[in-house]
Amino acid sequence: MSPVLHIWPGDTVHTTSVDAGGIDERSIARVLGGNPLTGPFYVEGSMPGDVLAVTLKRLRLNRDWAESDNALVDRALTPDYGAKIKPDWKGTRWHLDLDKENARLEKPSDNLKDFVLPVQPMLGCIGVAPGFGGAPLTAGDSGDLGGNMDFNQIAEGVTVYLPVSQPGALLYLGDAHALQGDGELNGNALETSMDIEFTVDVLREKHIGTPRAENSDYLMTIALSGSLDGAFREATSELAAWLEEEHKLSSSDVAVVLGTSIQYNIAEVADRNVGVVAKVPKRILAMIGPTLAQK
Amino acid sequence: MSPVLHIWPGDTVHTTSVDAGGIDERSIARVLGGNPLTGPFYVEGSMPGDVLAVTLKRLRLNRDWAESDNALVDRALTPDYGAKIKPDWKGTRWHLDLDKENARLEKPSDNLKDFVLPVQPMLGCIGVAPGFGGAPLTAGDSGDLGGNMDFNQIAEGVTVYLPVSQPGALLYLGDAHALQGDGELNGNALETSMDIEFTVDVLREKHIGTPRAENSDYLMTIALSGSLDGAFREATSELAAWLEEEHKLSSSDVAVVLGTSIQYNIAEVADRNVGVVAKVPKRILAMIGPTLAQK
Amino acid sequence: MSPVLHIWPGDTVHTTSVDAGGIDERSIARVLGGNPLTGPFYVEGSMPGDVLAVTLKRLRLNRDWAESDNALVDRALTPDYGAKIKPDWKGTRWHLDLDKENARLEKPSDNLKDFVLPVQPMLGCIGVAPGFGGAPLTAGDSGDLGGNMDFNQIAEGVTVYLPVSQPGALLYLGDAHALQGDGELNGNALETSMDIEFTVDVLREKHIGTPRAENSDYLMTIALSGSLDGAFREATSELAAWLEEEHKLSSSDVAVVLGTSIQYNIAEVADRNVGVVAKVPKRILAMIGPTLAQK
Amino acid sequence: MSPVLHIWPGDTVHTTSVDAGGIDERSIARVLGGNPLTGPFYVEGSMPGDVLAVTLKRLRLNRDWAESDNALVDRALTPDYGAKIKPDWKGTRWHLDLDKENARLEKPSDNLKDFVLPVQPMLGCIGVAPGFGGAPLTAGDSGDLGGNMDFNQIAEGVTVYLPVSQPGALLYLGDAHALQGDGELNGNALETSMDIEFTVDVLREKHIGTPRAENSDYLMTIALSGSLDGAFREATSELAAWLEEEHKLSSSDVAVVLGTSIQYNIAEVADRNVGVVAKVPKRILAMIGPTLAQK
Repeated sequence: MSPVLHIWPGDTVHTTSVDAGGIDERSIARVLGGNPLTGPFYVEGSMPGDVLAVTLKRLRLNRDWAESDNALVDRALTPDYGAKIKPDWKGTRWHLDLDKENARLEKPSDNLKDFVLPVQPMLGCIGVAPGFGGAPLTAGDSGDLGGNMDFNQIAEGVTVYLPVSQPGALLYLGDAHALQGDGELNGNALETSMDIEFTVDVLREKHIGTPRAENSDYLMTIALSGSLDGAFREATSELAAWLEEEHKLSSSDVAVVLGTSIQYNIAEVADRNVGVVAKVPKRILAMIGPTLAQK
Repeated sequence: MSPVLHIWPGDTVHTTSVDAGGIDERSIARVLGGNPLTGPFYVEGSMPGDVLAVTLKRLRLNRDWAESDNALVDRALTPDYGAKIKPDWKGTRWHLDLDKENARLEKPSDNLKDFVLPVQPMLGCIGVAPGFGGAPLTAGDSGDLGGNMDFNQIAEGVTVYLPVSQPGALLYLGDAHALQGDGELNGNALETSMDIEFTVDVLREKHIGTPRAENSDYLMTIALSGSLDGAFREATSELAAWLEEEHKLSSSDVAVVLGTSIQYNIAEVADRNVGVVAKVPKRILAMIGPTLAQK
Repeated sequence: MSPVLHIWPGDTVHTTSVDAGGIDERSIARVLGGNPLTGPFYVEGSMPGDVLAVTLKRLRLNRDWAESDNALVDRALTPDYGAKIKPDWKGTRWHLDLDKENARLEKPSDNLKDFVLPVQPMLGCIGVAPGFGGAPLTAGDSGDLGGNMDFNQIAEGVTVYLPVSQPGALLYLGDAHALQGDGELNGNALETSMDIEFTVDVLREKHIGTPRAENSDYLMTIALSGSLDGAFREATSELAAWLEEEHKLSSSDVAVVLGTSIQYNIAEVADRNVGVVAKVPKRILAMIGPTLAQK
Repeated sequence: MSPVLHIWPGDTVHTTSVDAGGIDERSIARVLGGNPLTGPFYVEGSMPGDVLAVTLKRLRLNRDWAESDNALVDRALTPDYGAKIKPDWKGTRWHLDLDKENARLEKPSDNLKDFVLPVQPMLGCIGVAPGFGGAPLTAGDSGDLGGNMDFNQIAEGVTVYLPVSQPGALLYLGDAHALQGDGELNGNALETSMDIEFTVDVLREKHIGTPRAENSDYLMTIALSGSLDGAFREATSELAAWLEEEHKLSSSDVAVVLGTSIQYNIAEVADRNVGVVAKVPKRILAMIGPTLAQK
């Protein structure tokens, strides 16, 4: 465990993340695997009841390889199909071309020898500490405090909102992915190390029920729960509550906006909690009365 | 019930759909409400075991209004949030501007007076008859035969694949929506009438487990089930099976393609079955060995 | 389809059920399979908004064999376990000893040659017609109108409450099982024919949200839904509502009674809907203030 | 944290549990609340890969009061019903009569003034430590290692089987309940302190996938998962695997036994994981070929 790093609202922080196996940008093992994270960062002046806003200013690959897997997680399969394919888990290794910003398998099958994908660097984990008596999450788990959300839009330019439950918030982040499909169906994404630049801000006495995020295009709520049906209820209700507050909309107006314009992502199904994201385009919200208090 | 209409593979069919309440393009009530559908069309030469391919060539609004609702369905809410907002269901009426191709509420609140949305015409229902002994679906229900899928990408240009279970397939379609968010959270989308032009083709002795679709950008499987978790398993397994067949991929290669590139839509949660769509971009598949047999 | 049979509240009706394959007590095929049912019975004087109370006075086996299956349904298995056992579906045939009231496999494996089970005759199906515009259920389906609930406590002595939605209610029943474990995990229970004696009563202008039942020991609510989580919510909420009404209990008192004394059954997972039963012992309710209005 | 207590297989251990709020049998607060547990017990000679068998020899109330709650947890309600009752959470206090072995509310409403329930002492928590790199559970959480299972058959006479993942197993137990309905719908059961007498045994190199238990009547598997549907799959598959192993049954025979004779409990829905128990009566198993290896 690294010592606590003190930062101030408004600071720009430059740091790095090792990969999920603890290996850094020079391919040196720095720490044991299992999503070792960077932090915690003590955010001066943040207190329980506040909301921490973390903006990922830069997220850049810093080495030329990633590791992943080649089977589909149990939760994505019907028992019939599972019986048919009998998943045979083996690691895969990818070459990352940092100039061309793409990824290809180091030892592809014939069918996949031309399979080259643009990278989309993202952080699988970003979270804060629980409050007094709350359950500390492992680096593989997630919940209302964030954590291992594995949502592929936690990428450069996003701002993530998390509930502060300890003085200083105790922010941590990591689990860098060069690229990940929705659901993180292989259990591992393209796990790699990364350079990170972020800023933090503190919003006073603001209540949020699930992690929230926004980028240039969307407002998003990220619900982590034991089932997709449960996470779907939470993500939708939280986005509805957000629009009510920020735009002073009636429940009826919220229903009209979401009924016509909501979109969903299934962020991940590979860990204990699954993640469902509810989102609404900012171009839609730009047509609604008051401006966003948060901007 | 209209008489059966006989069509041939390769035919281009011009028809119309009344709205979900049975009202036509001249605002005349033609039939009782509850998603009255157009058809059935008997497709000459199609037999059980075949797959019917229906391509929506044109889908155009033909009147200047639509009806919808202003609350969120129970299945999208947490009990806590439901207790807070206590949904108050009232119909809403929208003006459709056929030239500008947009929609606005006829009597908006102050907050929504500038809320104008581009239309995205789609069909909520498209399906075929069950086989001998199979359960006939009501026009509000859905399943492996298609039906009331309420997926907003069943739009102009899409090809839908459905399993033929009766001689002639007995295709029906309708439930035209000017516009619908993901999930169809208001129970009703912007329900209206529409002009439809479609073609059909018959694929011989091909097995599909759920409805499939493709447009210029995506291959998609549409799973309809009693829970999102169940539909997610089915949609993913069906898309994996599709890639195995069409591209002669190993399970390992399928897992790599989906793990990096799958996307999901939550099509609807407003009816008895919910719908989850799994999809993969065609630009991704273009990098894989054999070409699509189906094209 | 048999003609409608007219009966009056208070009548005792003697009838029979063929088995799920349409075969009667003399082993003669009378009708096609797929849960052919007995009825409909038009209950004179029952109107939409009433509740029909059906009491099964006698339920007796009337032949010496039953058919079942030897594998576990997909919905009861993890994909890992499904992959391991690869279910191989084959029919089984049971000998029913009508004197000793027990059942044994006709061709048991060595391990099961002493496997002899007491019979527990029950009806898999009991339901009423939907209202105008409602979806007619197939004999394999279930819902708020009852239907193919496959709950093994629908046995001799039970009273089942169903919502009347058509003049005359149009009651039907059948799908006789000599014996069934919880969940109906083999898809089929021990399917046989049966002699049935029942009475009907009509409760005026009483609202119920799911089928209800009571026997000498329990009040029970039977929720049929697309997921166990959904059915669990519905069964519990309906039982809470029942206690509020019948005992004039506050929400707080209902919570205390259910928190200490509720029990659940998982009725079935073999059909489109799964069934969860919430129940409370009558000996518990006997300690609560007002007496049951319904008795 | 108490020091580790060393015990040997075959030892009879006498100990006590404070209540979930940390209060002991003399009503003295001994430790902070949140299910403080007794232990850990280091079981000499137990190694990862073994199974620990813990038999609760005596479980006896040792004070005359318990605390509980008076509302229903969110996960047991439909949003509609939740909106209607708007749960108002307040603590309740119960008087425990140690001679008569019953419980009554200290300040009952008029309706519940004669509501007196026989006590059924049980332990909400029993579990072992995770293996290297595994997630330590909080005292409110549960999983394959056991933990806060809140199953009301973890009572006097039961033997619980848990997978050893650390040398010494590191057994802990507590969360004594005087009485609890299925589901633990009030979030808290009748929380009290208790005297406990237990023995431990170690089964060598035996694999179990979920906690298992047996009492004089049943073999039981206890699956803890994020949804009832998921836990149902796991509990059923684990019980099937148990019968395969112990009775050397074929998959077909297992299916026949479970299809006719399985029963389920919904153990709890009040915590992060829900619990589903699958069980089969021992009187049924007594009719099957080989005897139980475990007895």
